[in-house]
Amino acid sequence: MDDSILGPKMQIAIERDSRVPVYRQIEAQIRTLILEGRLPKGARLPSERILARHLGVNRTTVVNAYRELSADGLVKGRVGHGTIVLGPVPRQEEAEPPAGMPLVWTGLIRSRVRGLQSLVVRRVADLASRPGIISLATGVPEVTSSPYLHLEQTVQKVITSGQRALLQDSPIAGLMPLRAELARRLAMKGCSKPSASQVLILSGSQQGLYLVAQLLLEPGDAVLVESPTYLGALEVFRAIGARLIGVPVDSQGMHVKAAEQIMSRVNIRLIYTIPNFQNPTGSTMSAERRTALLALAQRFQVPILEDDLYGELFYDVSLPAPIRAADEGGYVLYLGSLSPVLGPGFRLGWLVAPLAVIEPLTALRQAMDLHPGNFVQEVVYELLVSGSFDIHLEWVRRAYAARRDTMLAALEQYMPGTIRWQPPQGGFYVWCSLERPLSSRDLLEEAAEEGVVFVPGEAFFPDGRGEQFLRLSFAHASLEEITEGIRRLAKVARRLEKRERQDTSVETDRPIV
Amino acid sequence: MDDSILGPKMQIAIERDSRVPVYRQIEAQIRTLILEGRLPKGARLPSERILARHLGVNRTTVVNAYRELSADGLVKGRVGHGTIVLGPVPRQEEAEPPAGMPLVWTGLIRSRVRGLQSLVVRRVADLASRPGIISLATGVPEVTSSPYLHLEQTVQKVITSGQRALLQDSPIAGLMPLRAELARRLAMKGCSKPSASQVLILSGSQQGLYLVAQLLLEPGDAVLVESPTYLGALEVFRAIGARLIGVPVDSQGMHVKAAEQIMSRVNIRLIYTIPNFQNPTGSTMSAERRTALLALAQRFQVPILEDDLYGELFYDVSLPAPIRAADEGGYVLYLGSLSPVLGPGFRLGWLVAPLAVIEPLTALRQAMDLHPGNFVQEVVYELLVSGSFDIHLEWVRRAYAARRDTMLAALEQYMPGTIRWQPPQGGFYVWCSLERPLSSRDLLEEAAEEGVVFVPGEAFFPDGRGEQFLRLSFAHASLEEITEGIRRLAKVARRLEKRERQDTSVETDRPIV
Repeated sequence: MDDSILGPKMQIAIERDSRVPVYRQIEAQIRTLILEGRLPKGARLPSERILARHLGVNRTTVVNAYRELSADGLVKGRVGHGTIVLGPVPRQEEAEPPAGMPLVWTGLIRSRVRGLQSLVVRRVADLASRPGIISLATGVPEVTSSPYLHLEQTVQKVITSGQRALLQDSPIAGLMPLRAELARRLAMKGCSKPSASQVLILSGSQQGLYLVAQLLLEPGDAVLVESPTYLGALEVFRAIGARLIGVPVDSQGMHVKAAEQIMSRVNIRLIYTIPNFQNPTGSTMSAERRTALLALAQRFQVPILEDDLYGELFYDVSLPAPIRAADEGGYVLYLGSLSPVLGPGFRLGWLVAPLAVIEPLTALRQAMDLHPGNFVQEVVYELLVSGSFDIHLEWVRRAYAARRDTMLAALEQYMPGTIRWQPPQGGFYVWCSLERPLSSRDLLEEAAEEGVVFVPGEAFFPDGRGEQFLRLSFAHASLEEITEGIRRLAKVARRLEKRERQDTSVETDRPIV
Repeated sequence: MDDSILGPKMQIAIERDSRVPVYRQIEAQIRTLILEGRLPKGARLPSERILARHLGVNRTTVVNAYRELSADGLVKGRVGHGTIVLGPVPRQEEAEPPAGMPLVWTGLIRSRVRGLQSLVVRRVADLASRPGIISLATGVPEVTSSPYLHLEQTVQKVITSGQRALLQDSPIAGLMPLRAELARRLAMKGCSKPSASQVLILSGSQQGLYLVAQLLLEPGDAVLVESPTYLGALEVFRAIGARLIGVPVDSQGMHVKAAEQIMSRVNIRLIYTIPNFQNPTGSTMSAERRTALLALAQRFQVPILEDDLYGELFYDVSLPAPIRAADEGGYVLYLGSLSPVLGPGFRLGWLVAPLAVIEPLTALRQAMDLHPGNFVQEVVYELLVSGSFDIHLEWVRRAYAARRDTMLAALEQYMPGTIRWQPPQGGFYVWCSLERPLSSRDLLEEAAEEGVVFVPGEAFFPDGRGEQFLRLSFAHASLEEITEGIRRLAKVARRLEKRERQDTSVETDRPIV
């Protein structure tokens, strides 16, 4: 045993309270010594026991460090001979690329990113960008004709009162007064009031979906989702490699009995639900099912992500209390957003969660984009506490109710018997089904030619089914556009149906040979 | 073979242009049939050949679907008997939790999140929040005393001219005029002008780091970083499970010769560098090393992430052109941010990259938080094109140069011989080293008692070393605070040094027994 190796050649410094595990510190430093040639090929490392004593660490720690080095082919342990440096592993010989050769990115981009955006959604976006088209596809609300928002005065007030803070950094979890105000508003929905520290300010509820997925899921983990559900949630869960297990939705929301059957058989890591005016079906989960779903979560010890994007947008009904209202055990992560009421131009959402979740989510959020913007938070806070937001909300509800009524009236007037729909009592969407063999993808292409687009059903299903469904949105189009859009759609549907019928009759007319 | 199983019981619908692979569609639908009890235990699935013909797919597709079901224990293939349904696998019997039992989150939170924020950084944040403390820790700039920003007028102009668009959604990659303006500004630094489509608007450069890591890295992948480097980048790379390989930094920036030695031995997936006024060392990479690093990237076909956070903040020198300026082959991802000049309250950064990268990054960004806010983008655009930004930038440079000079003067005046520092020519940071056995962690605790904090060096090192270094920031404190902070720090350092010397003498004074 050459003890001189513990001398100047092999100075290893251990920082005991570093977040880097000690064995990793040892491994990294020996690796550097080998890569830089300071521990040459053939050199013998000190025995694990001696190095452990020298550094004042457990022998296992050194064993682990040597094992990592050995796995990478940098050293080799031989019984009776100790651990010998093999030297750096030369990279496979490759012909050097000619100078100026561009980098080929295709092979470098990780597969989880490559499949992200669904083809059908991309197709809808392409078609919707044609000039003059009526979009019954987008769920982005048109709220700017509201006379009650008082945006200009609000912003001016915020700027004159607090120019300094607007440009500064915000706490990662958001400004405390805003968090407290959002906690207060959740309490008004029948929930026991969360503390302000339980509210995490986000750049929209999509960020909440992404954060929760990163927090709780590994590739292969099973997530219980409504089938159909919000396509942006499917993208997030797919991006992380989760398995999506769909539960049917009916007019009372998620079919909790079916969920129970699945959960007694599959190890579900997360339940994702949109209980109010669900996207895309428009269904609202009944109070009984909310209770039953929470009981399921408790029985199987599974968290629920309750996405309440549309909870403020009720037109004819009052809503049951959020699932979170009955949650005494901290099972529910509650997701809110201002986008449906204020438009998405501000980027502000929030998550209400047990403190045990807020803390790691805050660290994750810091890694993702540091913190929310002060400017936007201050403006939104002022809108909330000044009362502007609530007066505007009343206006928004009336405006959307009128659009919904217009869309339903147009469907009654124009739509052929082969299309059925479910009238929603809030939110933005009318969910329609076509009689087979009509396919919503075919309908989309022809409808775009007539100047109207929507989202085909398959975008919302976890298993790629749903071709007979389509989602119509009344979030963005004007009353006139809605009526005209449905008229065009009806025209195309009738034409397509007629053609399908002819196709079928041609087929039965074939001679038998 | 019971062909009736292809009848109503086993209706499988294939959507051929769905993003869900066909075998996954088949697997998911059969799984549902089994879980819901519609395919009971003992039922025989159609042979792979027959189902393939029935569905019009390749036999391999069905084989793959059955293999997945079999791996999950839902079916079993037996030679000569076909594939038999085993029925759902019952979950392990567990005692039902008592009603009202709270969810235990600890076990549910994934390990990659748990270790995210380093203890030392958390400790600094805690200490810095004490009342009356002088922070030489934060890199958040204090820019609000600028007389030239004209924020109020700018915001007012934006609101009155475009209230409608402010509340709407933005294109995922950002508003085109802003992207074009940022492309124009990059061209002024000596780069061939990128197209506006090559610019992706972000909510700060941290989001760019996170996106690029998600795009290119898998757990275990090796990333070449400067050692020391920006701690927020270390967090992002660690969160994804990457191996961090550090390259030393000297007064000319990253030691490219050392990088070359490493790259000829280790398969590096990404090079991360901060060439201008590096965080934390303040070093600027020489023009020669920039050329050499790009040549390395080309030789080994590895992308470079060039983080130019501090590129506008030069005080005495003019900077070499960005690495990207010589990049003809699309190797460089260039990251910019407004935070050092405008403050971080707006949340706006950008990435300039080849189109092959912009496209998947845009899809990833959509999954993460949909799109940047219109409000912030419009205000920033107006600040840029009105000239306010550039006049303000001149003021910012002068203001920081004065702070830097004040800090260097205070160091000269107060600091004992045992602390050395490297005067920076731009940016926010003075990098200092202590003579051993002084440790910057010990110094921090004592300094906080005296009312001043900084960031200990170990936060910036990929391997947990660096206890003899510390980073002093002049980004936020006033001139008076800087002088007073250094005075306090010097006092503590002298005290600590004296104590260490005594400790050592006590040790040598021990009787030999």
